[in-house]
Amino acid sequence: MSVKAKAIYTFLSENKEEISIQEKEELVIFDQNSVDGWFQGENSRGERGLFPASYVEIIRTRSNSNVTDCSISPAGSLGNDSSHFPSTPNTSLHLQQSYNNDDDDNDDDWDDWDDRSTVVDDGDSPGANGHAHQSPQSNNPNVHYRAKPHMERQDSISSSRKGSMVGRNLNRFSSFVRSGVEAFVLGDVPMMAKIAESYTIEMGPLGPLWKESPQPFSCSVENPTKQTKFKGIKTYISYRVTPSHTRHPVYRRYKHFDWLYNRLLHKFTVISVPHLPEKQATGRFEEDFIEKRKRRLVLWMNHMTSHPVLSQYEGLEHFLMCGDDKQWKLGKRRAEKDEMVGAHFMLTLQIPTEHQDLQDVEERIDTFKFFAKKMDDSVMQLTHVASELVRKHLGGFRKEFQRLGNSFQSVSQAFMLDPPQSSEALNKAISHTGRTYENIGEMFAEQPKYDLFLMLDKLSLYQGLLANFPDIIHLQKGAFAKVKESQRMSDDGKMDQDEADGIRKRCRTVGFALQAEMSHFHRQREVDFKDVMQAYLTEQIAFYQRVVQQLERTLHMYDCL
Amino acid sequence: MSVKAKAIYTFLSENKEEISIQEKEELVIFDQNSVDGWFQGENSRGERGLFPASYVEIIRTRSNSNVTDCSISPAGSLGNDSSHFPSTPNTSLHLQQSYNNDDDDNDDDWDDWDDRSTVVDDGDSPGANGHAHQSPQSNNPNVHYRAKPHMERQDSISSSRKGSMVGRNLNRFSSFVRSGVEAFVLGDVPMMAKIAESYTIEMGPLGPLWKESPQPFSCSVENPTKQTKFKGIKTYISYRVTPSHTRHPVYRRYKHFDWLYNRLLHKFTVISVPHLPEKQATGRFEEDFIEKRKRRLVLWMNHMTSHPVLSQYEGLEHFLMCGDDKQWKLGKRRAEKDEMVGAHFMLTLQIPTEHQDLQDVEERIDTFKFFAKKMDDSVMQLTHVASELVRKHLGGFRKEFQRLGNSFQSVSQAFMLDPPQSSEALNKAISHTGRTYENIGEMFAEQPKYDLFLMLDKLSLYQGLLANFPDIIHLQKGAFAKVKESQRMSDDGKMDQDEADGIRKRCRTVGFALQAEMSHFHRQREVDFKDVMQAYLTEQIAFYQRVVQQLERTLHMYDCL
Repeated sequence: MSVKAKAIYTFLSENKEEISIQEKEELVIFDQNSVDGWFQGENSRGERGLFPASYVEIIRTRSNSNVTDCSISPAGSLGNDSSHFPSTPNTSLHLQQSYNNDDDDNDDDWDDWDDRSTVVDDGDSPGANGHAHQSPQSNNPNVHYRAKPHMERQDSISSSRKGSMVGRNLNRFSSFVRSGVEAFVLGDVPMMAKIAESYTIEMGPLGPLWKESPQPFSCSVENPTKQTKFKGIKTYISYRVTPSHTRHPVYRRYKHFDWLYNRLLHKFTVISVPHLPEKQATGRFEEDFIEKRKRRLVLWMNHMTSHPVLSQYEGLEHFLMCGDDKQWKLGKRRAEKDEMVGAHFMLTLQIPTEHQDLQDVEERIDTFKFFAKKMDDSVMQLTHVASELVRKHLGGFRKEFQRLGNSFQSVSQAFMLDPPQSSEALNKAISHTGRTYENIGEMFAEQPKYDLFLMLDKLSLYQGLLANFPDIIHLQKGAFAKVKESQRMSDDGKMDQDEADGIRKRCRTVGFALQAEMSHFHRQREVDFKDVMQAYLTEQIAFYQRVVQQLERTLHMYDCL
Repeated sequence: MSVKAKAIYTFLSENKEEISIQEKEELVIFDQNSVDGWFQGENSRGERGLFPASYVEIIRTRSNSNVTDCSISPAGSLGNDSSHFPSTPNTSLHLQQSYNNDDDDNDDDWDDWDDRSTVVDDGDSPGANGHAHQSPQSNNPNVHYRAKPHMERQDSISSSRKGSMVGRNLNRFSSFVRSGVEAFVLGDVPMMAKIAESYTIEMGPLGPLWKESPQPFSCSVENPTKQTKFKGIKTYISYRVTPSHTRHPVYRRYKHFDWLYNRLLHKFTVISVPHLPEKQATGRFEEDFIEKRKRRLVLWMNHMTSHPVLSQYEGLEHFLMCGDDKQWKLGKRRAEKDEMVGAHFMLTLQIPTEHQDLQDVEERIDTFKFFAKKMDDSVMQLTHVASELVRKHLGGFRKEFQRLGNSFQSVSQAFMLDPPQSSEALNKAISHTGRTYENIGEMFAEQPKYDLFLMLDKLSLYQGLLANFPDIIHLQKGAFAKVKESQRMSDDGKMDQDEADGIRKRCRTVGFALQAEMSHFHRQREVDFKDVMQAYLTEQIAFYQRVVQQLERTLHMYDCL
């Protein structure tokens, strides 16, 4: 039974079986029971195929009110319908590419001659900018979820396993599959003998929470300094990074931040890792740009160190503490060989024993999904407005006040042209008024440094955080679908209840992790937005007070006339 | 000997013998000794003819440094050269038109059925808007200087007078001729047996001054009220006008102000009478327009009542005091029959006995001419900038702050979408911040009412005052030329020394009057510009203080979070 839906995000198809959908586009969904988090349907251009269920919103009409009672079609029937959605061998190309790049262990350089980076520093491994779901065609080799060899191995194991009847997602590039969460939920990721890492989720008054890190710390990023090597042929910026618990500074380049970012992305499924501050192709060494990137690296690092899970990452510790070249390489390789990444990371999670109704969890996540979408929109809107306001401060506002100042100056100059009649004190006062307004124009141009820039920095971090949620929610939607499917199969006697229970239990883990991450996001945004607004208002007040002071001083010049 | 010159004002030719010149245009002057204040030359388009000497600036090069010694060619030789500048019978058309209109004594109506005004009130006699020298082609029947029958009579007398050898200006439309100042200087305006009016020029420390009025007063213009007549067919605005010395209000319409304006213009040669606030063809009854016109009528009237000469005018007294319909008509006719207008007004001036070197006077006037030009430019520039700033306040500034406010609201709305996690107090504070910036946007839009509008009103008055100076200076230049010419003729024995002395004496009167008017202008502008700047700064300070207060109140909402 087909229903109508509306796209709430833009999704660009990456594979033959997928279709692209535009934000706000009307869609027809052939079967509203999503399969592994994917809907099959048709877009407004008549293209038919799959798109992520978490990217759309079903338009409920009265006649469709009983849709939840519809029987769920087995995923297998869709997967087998290869005439509609053939899975071609080519679709794994992208996967292999990214793996090959990743294998290049000589990538690290730390001033080696075989440094892959060219004279243009930081150009070697572009960070993921903007919304991941909006730029799938970028050639970024550091895709968010990389298929690792051991995962493929498990995939092949699982396909030969007896009794596993729950179909696998036909889309190899669904984040659900790529991240390994599908494999984890289906029980295809074996528990390892010894897991050193452990992250606990606790039950808070408002829901699951990440347990705070036992050793919280912060970290400063300061003093960006231009460095050269190869006798000045190559230049780069070095940042002094000082963790609060060691107080021992280390010096890092953007590429090292980028390495860390990619490790975090690789390992921490279900956690939103915001992208790094954007690169800039030209004028990289201009002061304003360096200052802006530094400010944003500070915020990015604050987010990492204040996150209960990310802050405990061994790779972060290595990044923050290692000051020795040889040790750096060893630690880097160790981090890259970490097996507890992606699907395996899910094994490190300890969840509370409290029962949570899966339906309730799904509703909470749906609420969060709409909240996150609206917040993403409003952050985008505020970013746009604040950027425009910066432009106005530097342009229009400055110009208007300077023009006014010039005009006053011009009046004063005219008054000086008839000397015996001219009142010198008045002319001086008017001329001073002119200069005052010229100053006020300059003050307007300077002001963004003290308020709007800082707001934009924080908004940029939040854009990065929010950009990850559609994919993360998509993981959870896929897990839910698996639970429903396995329960149906168990009910039909096609699956052991134990196996179905296992799937449900692991889905609970995904749900707890996502909720903990949602809670962390909410806590953090409360603190951050309070700070942002207070700082903005405080600076705005100081600004207008300075304007008043300037004008008052100027007005006094007229008093004695 | 031809020299180069640059036009400092735009002049549009009104007659065949004149050529138009554009501000900043390069000109060639055939003979740099002006004749009656007119140069003969060629503009950049190759047109040859006359243009006012006071509108141009001679470009002095080294080879021309001895130009002042050149012999002055008799004006007669130029006037006789009819092949170049034929004086056609058509040129008096304009003059007759304006006289005929003026003769229509039924023009007054004061609610008569034969009221010339149509349903569109104030459309009957448009006031002179903008710069007189910039709109000579307007069909305004109330041209600044109207030739009166008695002046023409004197003109014909003088042409038959024996011994008068000083040539008359060939240009009948030169303000020098039209105003009657030529006739006055040449002694063609006979002293009348009994002159009731008398205006004294005193010698002040910085030069000649108008003697203050013995009964100074001021006048309020208030309460513009929409009135109807003919059962609502016709609507107009009535203003309550209350002079300070009678405290008895009279009610006047714009057309009555316009009548007064034309009387003043007609009578007071050598005095700058600023134009009335402009008319507006559409939306005449919109509140903003009515308010603006009222404010500007107040300033206009203030200028009249604070002027030592204009404030003593019988027609003004009539305008300010007459409350009776029949008396109004009688007084109106009396004012229109006043003979002491134009040239005859010059007879009412009592000048000091102090000697002033004519060369010094000419230099002072030249200095003033450059000052007035520069002030006119800067007033124009400030008007332009301030108007643009008003537009920005109503548009750009408001929009930017409202957008910022909307964005904050939008963030707050997003935060409310995940209720269990939302911090209500923070959401309220952010929402309030949104409203605060929306308010600040509105405050920006409202602010021009308190500062820029008042500045623009004053600037408009000054534009009107400054617009008259080129023509007034032109009168004086014409008078100087007559003095030089008569002196030369006297030296050559072609004129009685007595007659030449008479011309010089009357030229002194013109010079004293112009200097007194210049002084009055300077005194007034000092007071006015001090007031304008103080008022502007005071309102600006109050504005930014209100912004600070709004922001401070908003910031406090974050304190208890």
